[in-house]
Amino acid sequence: MSCVFCAVVAGEAPAIKIYENADYLAILDIRPFTRGHTLVIPKQHTVDLTDTPPETLAAMVTIGQRIARAARQSGLHADGNNVVINDGKAAFQSVFHIHLHVLPRQSGDKLSFAKGMLMRRDPDREESGRLLREALAKLDPAEQD
Amino acid sequence: MSCVFCAVVAGEAPAIKIYENADYLAILDIRPFTRGHTLVIPKQHTVDLTDTPPETLAAMVTIGQRIARAARQSGLHADGNNVVINDGKAAFQSVFHIHLHVLPRQSGDKLSFAKGMLMRRDPDREESGRLLREALAKLDPAEQD
Ligand SMILES: [Zn+2]
Ligand SMILES: [Zn+2]
Repeated sequence: MSCVFCAVVAGEAPAIKIYENADYLAILDIRPFTRGHTLVIPKQHTVDLTDTPPETLAAMVTIGQRIARAARQSGLHADGNNVVINDGKAAFQSVFHIHLHVLPRQSGDKLSFAKGMLMRRDPDREESGRLLREALAKLDPAEQD
Repeated sequence: MSCVFCAVVAGEAPAIKIYENADYLAILDIRPFTRGHTLVIPKQHTVDLTDTPPETLAAMVTIGQRIARAARQSGLHADGNNVVINDGKAAFQSVFHIHLHVLPRQSGDKLSFAKGMLMRRDPDREESGRLLREALAKLDPAEQD
């Protein structure tokens, strides 16, 4: 399969899952800028903002908002988040299956954020995933199916 | 009025408008990273992702998508866009009335983009606004009210 996110959706590539429902999946970025850097992905393959239905985009950002709120309340102790869609190669999109980034941020993390953009690794991704899932479950247990 | 975006919504502060409907406004950023750098703002004041209703966020991103699509087809000749919400001071939010950035990008603009992040000026904002509005009107004339 040529699309890595379609492979993840199909269970043919590994990923640390943060959230999943019938149509969307949220996973940790394998090259994170910050701890808890999450990607929200529609299971149906589309490329970018030119071909993704507005309803899909709306659902993606709603899930991203919940993850951002969870990050603030999680053991990752985020004080804020960057929520980003890179639409097109010119905008640094690297996987051409649309995805929304949620980047948990901490007050005064400018230097470590800059370092994170170069290093792009999390020494304990499993723990980051666990902390986010735990906070999401507390945020809204009813939607954790 | 202490909130600059509420002042813009009230017509008490100037702005170059790209799009407006009953509940949302899109204006050019006064300190743009790129030409056509647009902000989508709900008219109702909320601060960030912690207090903005999901429906509001969904509408914001849908409008942002239309602007991103218009930018590609406009005289700004965008090849892509970064669509960004900075949620909280820790994530570089500077105006505490939620807003979504649409940053039109061009292939190979990395250097000028980096320069734009420092300079943050557009020598002809009126023209950038005109080009975006023109492309939006062509994209979907029915919604231009
Ligand atoms: Zn795919
Ligand atoms: Zn306001």
